[in-house]
Amino acid sequence: MTAQQAVAHKATTYINGLNVQAAADTIAALKADKSLAMFQFRARNTWVNGGENRSTIREFYGAGQEDASRAKPFEFTNGEPPVLLGNNEGANPVEFLLHALAGCVTTTFVLHAMARGITIRGLSTELKGNIDLRGLLGLDDGVSPGYEQIDIQMHVTADCSDEELDDLLAYAQQHSPVCSTVCRPVPVVITRAES
Amino acid sequence: MTAQQAVAHKATTYINGLNVQAAADTIAALKADKSLAMFQFRARNTWVNGGENRSTIREFYGAGQEDASRAKPFEFTNGEPPVLLGNNEGANPVEFLLHALAGCVTTTFVLHAMARGITIRGLSTELKGNIDLRGLLGLDDGVSPGYEQIDIQMHVTADCSDEELDDLLAYAQQHSPVCSTVCRPVPVVITRAES
Repeated sequence: MTAQQAVAHKATTYINGLNVQAAADTIAALKADKSLAMFQFRARNTWVNGGENRSTIREFYGAGQEDASRAKPFEFTNGEPPVLLGNNEGANPVEFLLHALAGCVTTTFVLHAMARGITIRGLSTELKGNIDLRGLLGLDDGVSPGYEQIDIQMHVTADCSDEELDDLLAYAQQHSPVCSTVCRPVPVVITRAES
Repeated sequence: MTAQQAVAHKATTYINGLNVQAAADTIAALKADKSLAMFQFRARNTWVNGGENRSTIREFYGAGQEDASRAKPFEFTNGEPPVLLGNNEGANPVEFLLHALAGCVTTTFVLHAMARGITIRGLSTELKGNIDLRGLLGLDDGVSPGYEQIDIQMHVTADCSDEELDDLLAYAQQHSPVCSTVCRPVPVVITRAES
């Protein structure tokens, strides 16, 4: 193996499906210029009818520029089940929140496992969250409309000890952007555009 | 019109695509037995590779029973763009959170418009949220990993005054389950299952 081949080999080493060198380069770049760490994510949503509405998600800003990597937008439909006056046009918004949370905890876990040199063999989660619908309906001002608590059970196998897994899990929980958005109070500012 | 036809007509009156009588019946039932308002939503997620993972969402508990209305599960894929070490396998988790938030604010708005007898002609939203990636990466303990703030611009036309729209918007913001979950600190409890 020549030195050049060795460099090329190193450049394509993956742990947990993540490019180790690309991750190291990204972290070095963010350390050198923190403005590269500033990301803005966006979505557009249009009401269809009743509990049905659709989002398109495509562009975002990050690493110092507008992203242009997506050939077309992602599209997602919110709906409601019949018991909530809909026709199951899609999962409902509180279910999509669970999907977002599951994915973020998982990706954060896998990312920091890679950083620690831990290879994940399998990872799955089950999420449950309770909501008292009297909050949404405004029937009792003492009832919060949102989730009371969200429980995640994680099944994970990896080439490390249970103690290392528990430490990694606690770290992932603390550093997951969606988990942080749920656990902390995050301001939501809604402005009505003049029509 | 016979009395029976009148009743049938009333039973299928819709405002904003929502069945007015079904909504009134639901609210009456929840007032009579608050246990019917207790819902549990669920998701299962499996890691695929790198920043890619998939959720299935189907069953939930609510209105006193397990729901059986969905013939098959909804499936959603989280991914990451190349700048975040992925291949755009799907929108990413923080983007799905925006989709959930947009949908919930919209549905809550439309629902309470119906309750007030307001007909919505059109409703769309644009969402933006800023994240400092140094939080996710653990590069600065002073930086929160989650959204700093989420801004929603709502475009809405309806058969009411601007003052009524603003009042309805404030009410929807206060009563949206996803908005409440983001704005308040909601506990997330992660447990690692023994393998």
